[in-house]
Amino acid sequence: MFKDELKVKTEEVEKIIYSYLPKDIDFQQTVVDAMIYSVEAGGKRLRPLLIQETYRLFGGKKDICKPFMAAMEFIHTYSLIHDDLPAMDNDDMRRGKPTTHIKFGEAMAVLAGDGLLNYGFETALSVFEKYPGNECAEKALIYLARSSGIFGMVGGQTVDVETDSTGVITKDKLDFVYDLKTGALLLASMHIGALLAGAGEKELFCIDEIAKKVGLAFQIQDDILDVTSTTEELGKPVGSDDKNNKATYVTFEGIDKAKEDVRRLSTEAVELLDSLEFKNEFLRNLIVYLIDRNN
Amino acid sequence: MFKDELKVKTEEVEKIIYSYLPKDIDFQQTVVDAMIYSVEAGGKRLRPLLIQETYRLFGGKKDICKPFMAAMEFIHTYSLIHDDLPAMDNDDMRRGKPTTHIKFGEAMAVLAGDGLLNYGFETALSVFEKYPGNECAEKALIYLARSSGIFGMVGGQTVDVETDSTGVITKDKLDFVYDLKTGALLLASMHIGALLAGAGEKELFCIDEIAKKVGLAFQIQDDILDVTSTTEELGKPVGSDDKNNKATYVTFEGIDKAKEDVRRLSTEAVELLDSLEFKNEFLRNLIVYLIDRNN
Repeated sequence: MFKDELKVKTEEVEKIIYSYLPKDIDFQQTVVDAMIYSVEAGGKRLRPLLIQETYRLFGGKKDICKPFMAAMEFIHTYSLIHDDLPAMDNDDMRRGKPTTHIKFGEAMAVLAGDGLLNYGFETALSVFEKYPGNECAEKALIYLARSSGIFGMVGGQTVDVETDSTGVITKDKLDFVYDLKTGALLLASMHIGALLAGAGEKELFCIDEIAKKVGLAFQIQDDILDVTSTTEELGKPVGSDDKNNKATYVTFEGIDKAKEDVRRLSTEAVELLDSLEFKNEFLRNLIVYLIDRNN
Repeated sequence: MFKDELKVKTEEVEKIIYSYLPKDIDFQQTVVDAMIYSVEAGGKRLRPLLIQETYRLFGGKKDICKPFMAAMEFIHTYSLIHDDLPAMDNDDMRRGKPTTHIKFGEAMAVLAGDGLLNYGFETALSVFEKYPGNECAEKALIYLARSSGIFGMVGGQTVDVETDSTGVITKDKLDFVYDLKTGALLLASMHIGALLAGAGEKELFCIDEIAKKVGLAFQIQDDILDVTSTTEELGKPVGSDDKNNKATYVTFEGIDKAKEDVRRLSTEAVELLDSLEFKNEFLRNLIVYLIDRNN
């Protein structure tokens, strides 16, 4: 039942994302093809879903969150394209399909990533065409930009890349990577949804706490799946952390503690969500679902 | 005399740019070092200069253009870092110094580029901290984002990369590359300066015409210098277009016609500038100077 609802909502979210894809292309068709290929390669669409559902949680009823939903997915997608590059993780497959540089060549993958990051901001900024002077949108943009850059995702990725070759990482640095590399955009998704709906300071603080727990649980679950899942289920090679000599949460804490922590973090997140005056049953289920996912 | 003024102004502009460089860095120091290395490697600072002087041309007296000046230079610098990558132009030297991937490795150069593009938007968005709800700033941000992305710089770079290997390019495509790869950010610089100063439709139209002529003249001059200059003067290898089998404006039109066109475009730009009610002697001299530069 929740899974059906999730499927319907994910398709709705995808329609919104796709509606913002670039049109009216001239000679630069190849880079746009590479961008669209990467965006359409699939994925859980978790970040735009979180924006939308957090926006609704706080009573948001307009379309002001839509450009941010698309922008967030574009920025997330760019990060995957560049992460997969030979100079980075050097991955040939993602979501069961050839990665962007395998399909379009390395130069075009660099440009498609650049293009998508930039287009993410173009898309988010288009909010001002309908909502000029909107200060919630300004704050959301500032939050988005900080979360995807050196104080967010790029910062996390930097430390991840630096420790990749050696496999040696302190727990402090691992926490930093988890906080920023994936955590920052998940946090930003919920924060932006709340901001755009006009949530107050207290609500924003609570949503941030929830999002941090969800983000960490989500990533530990990723590490667990890399050990326990199959390539078919996951749509990408399993055991890649081990192959790449990569220390993860599971390495530090062991698989049982990792599983327990996912459960604990998710429970705490749900309890915090329940403590709010505002309710969104789907968002609650989505958070619970993150415990059980197998891809 | 103009050269002295240019030197002083360039140093002032650099101070403004440097004041926006990231501070309070944690574990992600390396990527920030690579970003700062690339920004501090020098350059003419032409784009921020054009923002500032066009802003002043239309009577701008505040600091609202400052975040955009820094943002523009960060975005320009990111494009150089990624252009120099092995998968792209594969250049080892720029401005007489090792390029970012030579100095910091390829992964860090990808991330420094991503970080700078993102930080460019973070910096420009910081305008709302002092000027919340400012619709001129919103329009300037939208213009900046469009100019640096697939409908601007990234679009031009795409076509440039695609035709690089073969050396075969139609005049149509070459014009497209010139319009977008370098032209778009030069146009955006003048347009944004004018927008932020509150210039009207008619003035914006005129400034766009001027900027297009300046942008094209600037690039043809680049092609001329690649043929006629020395490595020492230029701070990068000359003859690289020829080495890379790269068709340029000079290839299509010949060196004499190219020189004549630079002169004609610059004269037309100056005449248009003189036709405005607003005056900025330094901006006028700067445009003329572009004819004579030898690096």
